[in-house]
Amino acid sequence: MATYDRMQVPSATIQRLPVYLRCLLSAQAAQQQLINSDGLAQMAGSNAAQVRKDLSYFGELGTRGLGYDVDELVSHLLRLLGIEERRRVAIVGFGRLGGALQSYPGFSERGFEVAAVVDADPDKVGGDVGGLTVRHIDELADVIESEGIDLVVVTTPAEAAQSVADVAVAAGVRAILNLAPVSITVPDGVLVRHADLAVELQVLSFHLSRGSAEGR
Amino acid sequence: MATYDRMQVPSATIQRLPVYLRCLLSAQAAQQQLINSDGLAQMAGSNAAQVRKDLSYFGELGTRGLGYDVDELVSHLLRLLGIEERRRVAIVGFGRLGGALQSYPGFSERGFEVAAVVDADPDKVGGDVGGLTVRHIDELADVIESEGIDLVVVTTPAEAAQSVADVAVAAGVRAILNLAPVSITVPDGVLVRHADLAVELQVLSFHLSRGSAEGR
Repeated sequence: MATYDRMQVPSATIQRLPVYLRCLLSAQAAQQQLINSDGLAQMAGSNAAQVRKDLSYFGELGTRGLGYDVDELVSHLLRLLGIEERRRVAIVGFGRLGGALQSYPGFSERGFEVAAVVDADPDKVGGDVGGLTVRHIDELADVIESEGIDLVVVTTPAEAAQSVADVAVAAGVRAILNLAPVSITVPDGVLVRHADLAVELQVLSFHLSRGSAEGR
Repeated sequence: MATYDRMQVPSATIQRLPVYLRCLLSAQAAQQQLINSDGLAQMAGSNAAQVRKDLSYFGELGTRGLGYDVDELVSHLLRLLGIEERRRVAIVGFGRLGGALQSYPGFSERGFEVAAVVDADPDKVGGDVGGLTVRHIDELADVIESEGIDLVVVTTPAEAAQSVADVAVAAGVRAILNLAPVSITVPDGVLVRHADLAVELQVLSFHLSRGSAEGR
């Protein structure tokens, strides 16, 4: 179904697609049927030209003078983002952050089902969290296979993150969101994104120190 | 003390400085005195040429053939990142995510002190968390001033985020880390970074759907 060349889509554009989807879902919830690039840009904290350019990579989506059909654009973005059906996620590391993510309603609203929770602590393993049984880290490969896990979120301490990634990759996982404060390495063909909130604060602090004003 | 033109430093380089710092602190903890660009690159999941280029924006930091003095480079990065002394952070929104962040040791280890916790829920306000008293959202401006807050982390529900940002900015805050699932707008001169983990998962999902392998 892809009628565009994905290699030509800039990664900054890909990053903004989820933001557009979030805005469109909120427009949809408000019963809005059409939205123009100005309106979408305003919700997304962007500008109209950027919105039009980003969406133009994926074909002729809007109607000049009218804008975009909200429902249609939502469907299109869900398809592009591969979340027409919810993807199944395992959270590995069930500390406070893992617990916060497991109970975060935003994941299920936005295309993801937390289908497994895994930890190394015998006091946590076997416990019930939101209808899931916490599984032991040694069972990670089994859990990935039996639960059909597409994505693994790593919220372990730094020293455990690489071995979790290794097991997940060996079990067939091709996408990892790493929230541990350490870089992990994976083979070609496996995607890792690293979100580290202390890094975000340090980037803000850099700009504060310099008196510069470029956020994102 | 800035001997470089900050406007010429690419934002991707700025983003990597915290990663280098994290790696260097871990080398320092292991009593390592010198590190070359290869070693640092390997820890950071980057390559040596990139490391050298990134650090070259900030002057002559290493010695050819020897590498970088770990302690010296740590001090230099702490200064660049504006965290020689810990910056004071307020967490606004004390739900599960706010709670996880408040107790996250990584913040204090990496330059930030959670100096205030603020919420709107009367059941939470007045409670003690890690030696801090949860303050009411209506007191936010006072808290920012009396606690000398530099940075505000917004972990409220989407609908409250903009008004929190408005109050923080009016009270003099110039840097906001937004973890709420909504874009916020701020005046020129104020920095916002937006971290949304559902967005991260959706970007991974996009690549999974396309069979492409570009993470970051």
